[in-house]
Amino acid sequence: MRINEERLRSRMDAINRIAVTEEGGMMRLALSDADKTARDLLKSWIKEAGMEVRIDDLGTIQGYLPGTDPNSLPIGVGSHMDTQPNGGRYDGLFGVMSGLEAVCTLIDNGITMKSPLVVIDWTNEEGARFVPPMLASGVVAGNFDVNWVYAKEDKNGIKYVDELTRIGYMGSKSNRFEKAKAYIEPHIEQGPILDQEGYEFGIVTGALGITGLDVKIKGETNHAGTTPMRNRKDALMVAAEAMLELRKKTIEYGDPAVITMGIISASPASKNIVPGEVYFSIDMRHDNDEALTRLEQDVREIIQKVCSDNCAESHIERYWRADPVHFDEGIINASEKVANKLKIRAKRIYSGAGHDAVFINRIIPTGMLFVPSIKGMSHCPQEDTKWEDIVTGTEMLTELLIKIDK
Amino acid sequence: MRINEERLRSRMDAINRIAVTEEGGMMRLALSDADKTARDLLKSWIKEAGMEVRIDDLGTIQGYLPGTDPNSLPIGVGSHMDTQPNGGRYDGLFGVMSGLEAVCTLIDNGITMKSPLVVIDWTNEEGARFVPPMLASGVVAGNFDVNWVYAKEDKNGIKYVDELTRIGYMGSKSNRFEKAKAYIEPHIEQGPILDQEGYEFGIVTGALGITGLDVKIKGETNHAGTTPMRNRKDALMVAAEAMLELRKKTIEYGDPAVITMGIISASPASKNIVPGEVYFSIDMRHDNDEALTRLEQDVREIIQKVCSDNCAESHIERYWRADPVHFDEGIINASEKVANKLKIRAKRIYSGAGHDAVFINRIIPTGMLFVPSIKGMSHCPQEDTKWEDIVTGTEMLTELLIKIDK
Repeated sequence: MRINEERLRSRMDAINRIAVTEEGGMMRLALSDADKTARDLLKSWIKEAGMEVRIDDLGTIQGYLPGTDPNSLPIGVGSHMDTQPNGGRYDGLFGVMSGLEAVCTLIDNGITMKSPLVVIDWTNEEGARFVPPMLASGVVAGNFDVNWVYAKEDKNGIKYVDELTRIGYMGSKSNRFEKAKAYIEPHIEQGPILDQEGYEFGIVTGALGITGLDVKIKGETNHAGTTPMRNRKDALMVAAEAMLELRKKTIEYGDPAVITMGIISASPASKNIVPGEVYFSIDMRHDNDEALTRLEQDVREIIQKVCSDNCAESHIERYWRADPVHFDEGIINASEKVANKLKIRAKRIYSGAGHDAVFINRIIPTGMLFVPSIKGMSHCPQEDTKWEDIVTGTEMLTELLIKIDK
Repeated sequence: MRINEERLRSRMDAINRIAVTEEGGMMRLALSDADKTARDLLKSWIKEAGMEVRIDDLGTIQGYLPGTDPNSLPIGVGSHMDTQPNGGRYDGLFGVMSGLEAVCTLIDNGITMKSPLVVIDWTNEEGARFVPPMLASGVVAGNFDVNWVYAKEDKNGIKYVDELTRIGYMGSKSNRFEKAKAYIEPHIEQGPILDQEGYEFGIVTGALGITGLDVKIKGETNHAGTTPMRNRKDALMVAAEAMLELRKKTIEYGDPAVITMGIISASPASKNIVPGEVYFSIDMRHDNDEALTRLEQDVREIIQKVCSDNCAESHIERYWRADPVHFDEGIINASEKVANKLKIRAKRIYSGAGHDAVFINRIIPTGMLFVPSIKGMSHCPQEDTKWEDIVTGTEMLTELLIKIDK
């Protein structure tokens, strides 16, 4: 079924004109004035489509279209409209706008559904203004307490609850999207796989689990001029050796295992002192719970071995663990059938990043659909997706809603 | 010739009781009240020995003992009494006190010298309060301008010149130690070589040259979850590989070549972002000018090769270059003869650290003598030297002064 390309494009353009950085990036921090302007536009389009606007107590917006079967649970589709401080054009916005466009296309074509359809814009997905991310879906899924979220402050000390009230989007708890037949989140991949391998579309089977470690390596602080090489216990050299071993081991695990050392520091941090201590962070991810546990074990053993080989000591602390998420098999299979029917080159893929769908999956059968990100660019002005992939993804979504409704 | 061990020990103890940190370290920052107390004690002992006290316009103290030959240039001996914030018992102090003890021993034994003898306490050698180090000897040697030094401020904004005046040690330019037959600086090794190899004594042939580089490596910033390992240009992995190669290459150069990466940072410094850029510092040292130049060339080539192998870019900037220093051959040979005569197990050795002697070597024939540092500990409360090595070093110095005078 053909969507209204022009409508989809002009609506996305309208949102993406609201707040643009010097580098051409998007700047719609959650609950900011820019976010309010985007919300107001979304609300107007929901009304234009003849849908009902519902706002919950986290500020999440829902466009509600009743179904023909009074006993059928709704099908939700959406994502978020907030962005990183200098974010991309389609991250989040694609999910909300493709959901709205799919519903509008169904209406335009006079297709009625048994299930109510709900187009959703979750509040503060990015976590760029209020930390951590996915605060609204986290409350709905039972991960966070609403008052804990209300008390969250941005870097200027402004509270979530105050901004929510200020921009006029404090709604009712009874509007929370808690019970549904399905929740579908279309999103950009944010990685390079689909683009690189020539796929038009990704059927997301789950999200990688994450283990985060803080690592300290202790060697010996020494004078950079008076300590011969053979007498050093240079903590940075030990860390360098360990980090390369960790990368090698992770590559042995194969896709989708990844490991990232994002932060590093040496102390005492003087140009002419051999560093006696080094800190670095580890973020490792895998789609398989058992493999993620095994990887953590391997990582710990490698660090300990490299340290003991070099007469250094290590201290490892786990700061984070998120189990791998597996999306609903029914939705995955339905997506695959629709893709085959539409002759779309689709690949089963994992999400490496967090999404509202990851939380919502705990309470509602959930699925995600990816469109390719050109060169995998994400959270930057260079983030882009081919327009034909945006269109294909939205048409695929439309067909999927029909299939799930059956 | 036997020195007066008891006098040497009690005088050192008196200085080392002035300001002691909780960890048992010394805290005599240059021109502080603690430094003044140490200076006042030194002055009293100079007078007690019948020597004349001279202060120059940098605050450097000299105890002057006339010689029998009115045409002979003086022989200087000394070091510094200022310390690091939590420094050791013998760093600097050994040079001043062994010099004083040697002269007192000569006087006690009725030995007259042709040359005047000058015991010296240089101001602000450590550079712990006023940066950079060796400010007073640097002016005398012509490296620094005196007004530039006067204007130097400590971290509280207090000027060198104001503190010098406040503690009453502003002297006269005409008292600068500029012309001399020789300058000898006894010092602790601050490295582990003598201790490890079982020597009692080090005859310092020179000081290592230093080349300092700032290195930036540029890869690509990426999402830690969505970017497969094979798609990464992780700047920290490139840096780790380069640093290990640099260490390997430097070890191939053999002693006394050393390389230190003391500071490192990754950006954007987020636990879940693959670092797109890494900065690290390099401090490399060698006793041979040509070899130091070659090492720098090798280091640059290694970084460039590792970067190009990994599709990364590097930017390398030299922030420091100090040529290797070679001390006076006559003093080195004289020291060796004295050591042989006294049957002291002495080793020719390089200084990896900077010293006032390194500057003074530019204007006066200069030599340095090292006593062993136990386990090479330096700039910390654990710094230590066996008492018998302190005594041997002082006796050796006494004999060397006699030899140089002849």
